[in-house]
Amino acid sequence: MTSDATRRGGPGRRPGKVDTKGQILEAARAEFAAKGFDRTTIRAVAAAAAVDPGLVHHYFGTKDDLFVAAMELPFDPRMLVPLIVGQDVDGLGERLVRTFLGVFENPDVRERILGLIRSAVTVDHAAAMTRDLIDHVILTPVADALGGGDDARFRVTLVGSHLVGLALARYVLRLEPLASATSDQIIERVGPTVQRYLST
Amino acid sequence: MTSDATRRGGPGRRPGKVDTKGQILEAARAEFAAKGFDRTTIRAVAAAAAVDPGLVHHYFGTKDDLFVAAMELPFDPRMLVPLIVGQDVDGLGERLVRTFLGVFENPDVRERILGLIRSAVTVDHAAAMTRDLIDHVILTPVADALGGGDDARFRVTLVGSHLVGLALARYVLRLEPLASATSDQIIERVGPTVQRYLST
Repeated sequence: MTSDATRRGGPGRRPGKVDTKGQILEAARAEFAAKGFDRTTIRAVAAAAAVDPGLVHHYFGTKDDLFVAAMELPFDPRMLVPLIVGQDVDGLGERLVRTFLGVFENPDVRERILGLIRSAVTVDHAAAMTRDLIDHVILTPVADALGGGDDARFRVTLVGSHLVGLALARYVLRLEPLASATSDQIIERVGPTVQRYLST
Repeated sequence: MTSDATRRGGPGRRPGKVDTKGQILEAARAEFAAKGFDRTTIRAVAAAAAVDPGLVHHYFGTKDDLFVAAMELPFDPRMLVPLIVGQDVDGLGERLVRTFLGVFENPDVRERILGLIRSAVTVDHAAAMTRDLIDHVILTPVADALGGGDDARFRVTLVGSHLVGLALARYVLRLEPLASATSDQIIERVGPTVQRYLST
């Protein structure tokens, strides 16, 4: 004899149990896509998911945290910020390029990031979400740490554009000899470029 | 009274006239997509289009020329080569970035190039065709002019990756302040980077 519960999801699962976290994430993705980061509120996400705003904070923390969770990134891009700004300025370019390339070494993570890039270049609202993500989670904190202002932001966007282009040329277009170069060969050339953009 | 000819394409067009050039281009696109640049021959394209190989040469010139025509580019990327290698090394980075950004200033041309980039990142055979295009039409001649060998090619791919990333960040993601920066502001920063990659 088979009960409803075992048929639905095994004995550990209560019948009709609602996936509240999943509903919140779905509502968050819809809100961020429709309104962008700035005009999305935790309150609106909670309303769309039919839960209390406190529950959204309880599960996901700040709006930044919720955004990172909603994007389903394979890693938290905020880990890059202390790496860029929290250590010695010497070797900063090298550390950043090394970490960036390291993220692509895991094939699963690489595929998910390339998937994000593909959506960002083909779907308008994905481009907007990716722009918001980069802006709020990496660009603004790094630029602030470099002294803030438009010039610091500008230099950080140049670094970001170089690294994204590098990933495309190496992993998507597979241009040789860039595609078969070792990380060290790339770091040796690109590290100083990144260093100059960030330090002058 | 309306003749077949006027109904089909106006009085200047013979009835049943075959678009031979169009057929050759279609055959070329299919061959390049299926086999890549290296393994595609003018002879095979001619056979697929059911014309004489001499006619392919007559209409389109070399295999390079045919490839550029088949990609339906809004400009001939080979114009970049003499610009990079045929002039003084001083100011080479600046000239290259200025020309690259200039290409994007015409909205129609910009949309077509972004369309190519979109296909290249989402469709595998488009990525292969774009790789072949960049390789045979820009990368190899520029690298040869810089002395040839893997190191020259590597440095040219780094320049290309930076410029493609710049186009994505500025025109697709529209990251600020990069998206609203003037060409001169970008040239001032990125020109020296490109110069260093190409000259050291």
